[in-house]
Amino acid sequence: MNGAELLCEVLLANGIDTCFANPGTSEMHFVAALDRNPRMRCVLGLSEGVVTGAADGYARMADRPAATLLHLGPGLANGLANLHNARRARTPMVNVVGDHPAYHLPLDAPLTSDIDSLARPMSNWVGRLTSADELAAIASEACRQAMSIPGISTLILPADAAWNEAPAQAVVRAEPAAPPAIDEAALAEAVAALEAGGRTAILLGGTALRADALNLAGAIAAATGARLLAETSNARIERGAGRVAVDRVPYPVDLALRALGDIDTLILVGSKAPVAFFAYPGKPGRLTREDCRIIPVAEKGQDLRAALGQLAERVGATLSRVAGRSQAFEAEEQPADGPLTAEAIATIVSRLMPEGAIICDEALTSASNFFSQSHRSPPHDFLSITGGAIGIGIPLAAGAAFASPGRKVIGMQADGSGMYTVQGLWTQARERLDVVTIVFANRAYRILEGELKNVGVAAAGPNARRMLELDDPHLDWVHLAKGMGVEGVRVDTAASFRTAFEASLRQPGPFLIEAVI
Amino acid sequence: MNGAELLCEVLLANGIDTCFANPGTSEMHFVAALDRNPRMRCVLGLSEGVVTGAADGYARMADRPAATLLHLGPGLANGLANLHNARRARTPMVNVVGDHPAYHLPLDAPLTSDIDSLARPMSNWVGRLTSADELAAIASEACRQAMSIPGISTLILPADAAWNEAPAQAVVRAEPAAPPAIDEAALAEAVAALEAGGRTAILLGGTALRADALNLAGAIAAATGARLLAETSNARIERGAGRVAVDRVPYPVDLALRALGDIDTLILVGSKAPVAFFAYPGKPGRLTREDCRIIPVAEKGQDLRAALGQLAERVGATLSRVAGRSQAFEAEEQPADGPLTAEAIATIVSRLMPEGAIICDEALTSASNFFSQSHRSPPHDFLSITGGAIGIGIPLAAGAAFASPGRKVIGMQADGSGMYTVQGLWTQARERLDVVTIVFANRAYRILEGELKNVGVAAAGPNARRMLELDDPHLDWVHLAKGMGVEGVRVDTAASFRTAFEASLRQPGPFLIEAVI
Repeated sequence: MNGAELLCEVLLANGIDTCFANPGTSEMHFVAALDRNPRMRCVLGLSEGVVTGAADGYARMADRPAATLLHLGPGLANGLANLHNARRARTPMVNVVGDHPAYHLPLDAPLTSDIDSLARPMSNWVGRLTSADELAAIASEACRQAMSIPGISTLILPADAAWNEAPAQAVVRAEPAAPPAIDEAALAEAVAALEAGGRTAILLGGTALRADALNLAGAIAAATGARLLAETSNARIERGAGRVAVDRVPYPVDLALRALGDIDTLILVGSKAPVAFFAYPGKPGRLTREDCRIIPVAEKGQDLRAALGQLAERVGATLSRVAGRSQAFEAEEQPADGPLTAEAIATIVSRLMPEGAIICDEALTSASNFFSQSHRSPPHDFLSITGGAIGIGIPLAAGAAFASPGRKVIGMQADGSGMYTVQGLWTQARERLDVVTIVFANRAYRILEGELKNVGVAAAGPNARRMLELDDPHLDWVHLAKGMGVEGVRVDTAASFRTAFEASLRQPGPFLIEAVI
Repeated sequence: MNGAELLCEVLLANGIDTCFANPGTSEMHFVAALDRNPRMRCVLGLSEGVVTGAADGYARMADRPAATLLHLGPGLANGLANLHNARRARTPMVNVVGDHPAYHLPLDAPLTSDIDSLARPMSNWVGRLTSADELAAIASEACRQAMSIPGISTLILPADAAWNEAPAQAVVRAEPAAPPAIDEAALAEAVAALEAGGRTAILLGGTALRADALNLAGAIAAATGARLLAETSNARIERGAGRVAVDRVPYPVDLALRALGDIDTLILVGSKAPVAFFAYPGKPGRLTREDCRIIPVAEKGQDLRAALGQLAERVGATLSRVAGRSQAFEAEEQPADGPLTAEAIATIVSRLMPEGAIICDEALTSASNFFSQSHRSPPHDFLSITGGAIGIGIPLAAGAAFASPGRKVIGMQADGSGMYTVQGLWTQARERLDVVTIVFANRAYRILEGELKNVGVAAAGPNARRMLELDDPHLDWVHLAKGMGVEGVRVDTAASFRTAFEASLRQPGPFLIEAVI
């Protein structure tokens, strides 16, 4: 068994049976090993942003890591933006990045680069093999780290570590490190604050936004009057009718300051103290009042359900009384008709989407309205862009769908960010993934047009317009989709959008709706 | 004048008036400054691989740097693969990468990342501003470094250095460092070797492949019998009928070993001693014989024309006798007809392309035949992928065309690599660039299928096929192009290819021909 074959065994022993890939020559022995191992499911992405974004979506839904296979430094570099998002989401992932053998590196062949330096900023753990002898130990550690943190492991695989014979050995599943225990002092402080009443909020993030954890949070809210909030960007929220609804900290600084301004005590469960996404002249970076007391109870990676369970128990909250459960839409609430706007799309999708849907939201400026309406939609998962690196939506939807057969994935996709990884539509087509992508075609980086106004440019001149508008020519998403084997339709009225969306729900995807708004 | 406006002035003072861009919120003050400065020409790319690839193509043709504008770490990351190629091409470029102000970084807002670490592997120089006060000095140094090396300067621009008032100051053009003088001892050694006769070759790279330098090399060859060779991958070769033809070191290791095996002395002018692109079990990394004497006369960045001039003078070579000038095709040599193959395309393009054409070659397995035929084409420039990071072709063509009004750019584009930065077609459309893109649609990563055989997999199984074939579904390039505003046509016979190519030459582009081979 060579190193590449042993690496397959290590991955499989750790429950990693899906490999999103775009290999090159230096990874060819690993490709051959994957080929001899039909238990591994290999999914090709036509650029590495698709590969890493899909691995993120997969793991968010499967709750276990996928592997990726990336070609040297440039292949890794292409995937870094979505690794950045995945790292912020605390998604477990094991990246396998090929490299030249150590003896070939000093020759500085054209594809040589400093892979370790490229990997570190977007990885929680980076390891480099130096021979096939140590492969099992280091690859196992890569898996263990990905599952323990959870986070991004990047394993650099020199070609000779793949092609050389590895020592025979038993391969066993790595035991992830136990998550750090919940800090007793913080817990006690939080309980005291909750029991004191007053203007106290719990800011939830990570797995505290799964349905069972939210129930506990809702029980605490019912017992103590505390407000519940979610972070602005979240890996996955289980929400919809019957589940505890939680508003997010708004993205715009001024709105966030207003939303958080009356909170005297903020309890963090799986979240960080909220900060502004960007710095602006004269505006604060921290979004809570300066005198707001912050009580960090638990971080992402800890057992957040247990933390909430302990809080609930100590404040006397029980699941028999849970605040904030969403009501379902009533039958007579019909979707809007009229001109096609982002609001109309939000209304229609939130009312018509099926139970178990998975929303992948990269609609940015276009879909804030959707979140507030879809509290009342059938129970669903909501996945969003977590690190602000645009170009996650289409791959995220692909990966989520691959992990979730039988569930409808709905991509809420801005056009500007969608173009970053438009290649992911091909992966959706090839894998017959049940995804409907709704492109909010406003034909501009609209969010930036607002930001330009914020810096004092009342009327953009030619240079700014040329950098912020996606017209001249406008993108034709129906053709783009068709070019990658995905059927699509363009609509520009609410009624035609509704018809198209209903049709997309009746038949398995992929499908794309270009919604001109 | 704020820092952003001053940065524009510094760039313009250094002759940098073109900015390939994809900005974000943290760069909005720079966008506003560009907007107030109509002398700057801003070109939007819909992903950063397009931005950096286009800046590379621009500088290869303009012989001066463009700027790029990139959004934080992830925006830079998306552009790194083509920066890798540009660095290998020794292309001058000044990247401006936005960042949060220093006071905002400790808050670890979602888009925070270690930009410096990401930038270093693919940059020759990295600088970070800490205030608007020092902006002129550091930005000027960024320009100076880009032009001196020549190479990639990456300037990290925190938002507050852009928005704060900069001290009033005169902005002057930076003086690039003089290139290192040609080493007298190496020159003397090379002259002695050339005069001794024997099996001596000159390996040319960089600007030694421009027409005037090639003339000198041809004169040396005529006077001494030395062979001329070019590196495998080159930023730009001036070639075609009437110019000195130079064969490249072959890409496959076995062919390269054979091509170089009879060389006793190899003189390097703008080149490095040839090494294998990848390591293979049991094959050497250095491609020359172990006993081959290597004489490094000059490196890229030195005055290679002067080095060749000195060599010529000392061996008594004159431009009245130049070896290896290509003959033009004779009128009766008609392009091939019959089934559409890569060879047929090579034959047709090499015979029909107009004088002054710029070939951007990322056809990989499909176009090796083209290079040998097009020695006899009308004089043209030939730009190739220099760092092995695929996804350069479409943006490179866009940038080259932007720099070269009135010249036809012909992209020879493999389908797999073309998909990496397919978004560049939109930039071609928006800027009305005169590019015809020929997609060699073999519907596979054919080069890797060969490599898989090399590692002993006679017949690929499902996993390998799923990673190496671009079928199921196949890509429809005509639809893809149309989706981005580029007209296109699909052809599958030599005759229909010829008709389409001739039509594309009669009218300014952009245009795309999907050549199904």
